Amino acid sequence: MRLELKRAIYEENDELARKINEGLRSRRIFTVNVLGSPGAGKTSLLTRVAERLRPEPLAVIEGDVASDIDTVALKALGIDAYQIETGGDCHLNAPMMEAVLGRMEISDGSWLFIENIGNLICPAEFVIGEDLKVVVASVAEGSDKPYKYPAAFSKSAACILTKIDLREAVGFDEGFFRAGLASVAPGAPLFPINGRTGQGVDAVVDWLKAARASSLK
Amino acid sequence: MRLELKRAIYEENDELARKINEGLRSRRIFTVNVLGSPGAGKTSLLTRVAERLRPEPLAVIEGDVASDIDTVALKALGIDAYQIETGGDCHLNAPMMEAVLGRMEISDGSWLFIENIGNLICPAEFVIGEDLKVVVASVAEGSDKPYKYPAAFSKSAACILTKIDLREAVGFDEGFFRAGLASVAPGAPLFPINGRTGQGVDAVVDWLKAARASSLK
Repeated sequence: MRLELKRAIYEENDELARKINEGLRSRRIFTVNVLGSPGAGKTSLLTRVAERLRPEPLAVIEGDVASDIDTVALKALGIDAYQIETGGDCHLNAPMMEAVLGRMEISDGSWLFIENIGNLICPAEFVIGEDLKVVVASVAEGSDKPYKYPAAFSKSAACILTKIDLREAVGFDEGFFRAGLASVAPGAPLFPINGRTGQGVDAVVDWLKAARASSLK
Repeated sequence: MRLELKRAIYEENDELARKINEGLRSRRIFTVNVLGSPGAGKTSLLTRVAERLRPEPLAVIEGDVASDIDTVALKALGIDAYQIETGGDCHLNAPMMEAVLGRMEISDGSWLFIENIGNLICPAEFVIGEDLKVVVASVAEGSDKPYKYPAAFSKSAACILTKIDLREAVGFDEGFFRAGLASVAPGAPLFPINGRTGQGVDAVVDWLKAARASSLK
């Protein structure tokens, strides 16, 4: 009974996610679902990416279990940000996306970034209308994350490795990390960045532009 | 229907957790459920604590979504470690604990540490037979974690703040963190540590000994 219910929840979610994605694509809105642990640097990444994509239209949906700290911070930077507060739920789902899209004003042709809940497990299991997922991991989390949380990496089209200024301080083993990523997500590019200085973010933006062009053509 | 099922799952879990805890307590085994994000430093903390509690009997249960990297590392240090691999599940539950306890050899009067899945959300919702929970958060995750993930902090008897050597490099705001902790977990002590050098771990061990003495008396 539980397994059947679980399957029904996934099917219902996936069907709605498909509709949401169709609706967004029909308006040439390119949608990126950003996964990562608490404190991986998702908001910093989005801030840096948004700066570089200006003046193209862009909106961010911020998913949080509680608090609107990140939404307030993004708005203060002039970024069009919308909050989903799940009140305990550990991932976003398609119904939450449908609800927030209903109250958003987003231009045709926009970039749409969704910062999922800080969690390297559950968000990987749900599509929510995105064109692709990316996963953000900080060097401070250690070199073993692709091995320990394979789904978040295998379902993502690219991996952004953050806080690279701490590499030596934390003894990060990039070879071990890269080998783990290659084993669960063969071909997915790795982008090392420093979200505080912006180092490395241009390469992420170039890759996003290529992914968008290829997806919307 | 879904809500009822959710309630039934919790009730079933809590009932079993109560029985597990009774069984452990009757053998004077003191059980600590360790929560924290991926890469927060849970395994390093347990390694340092185990070194200091020697020669007292001690066992560790390692929860992981995938891989046995931590269990292998703990065993290599001579620590009695047992693996639970959830195969995708985002938290440990009482039935998993019952299963692993069935295959463990653990002496009466032992310390039992459970490293829960790296996830600051779902593990907070489940009791699994522990006497108390502690939450581990690294300065690299940022100063806002108690505000964003209140349940993990409010359900924990203490908070271990790790990787304090990175404080300045990441611009950690300890006052903001402490205020957040105090608001969701009034009275819970904060222990800043460096898991690589062992700095600060003695205070954690003293607190654990006092908690154990008070719990088992």
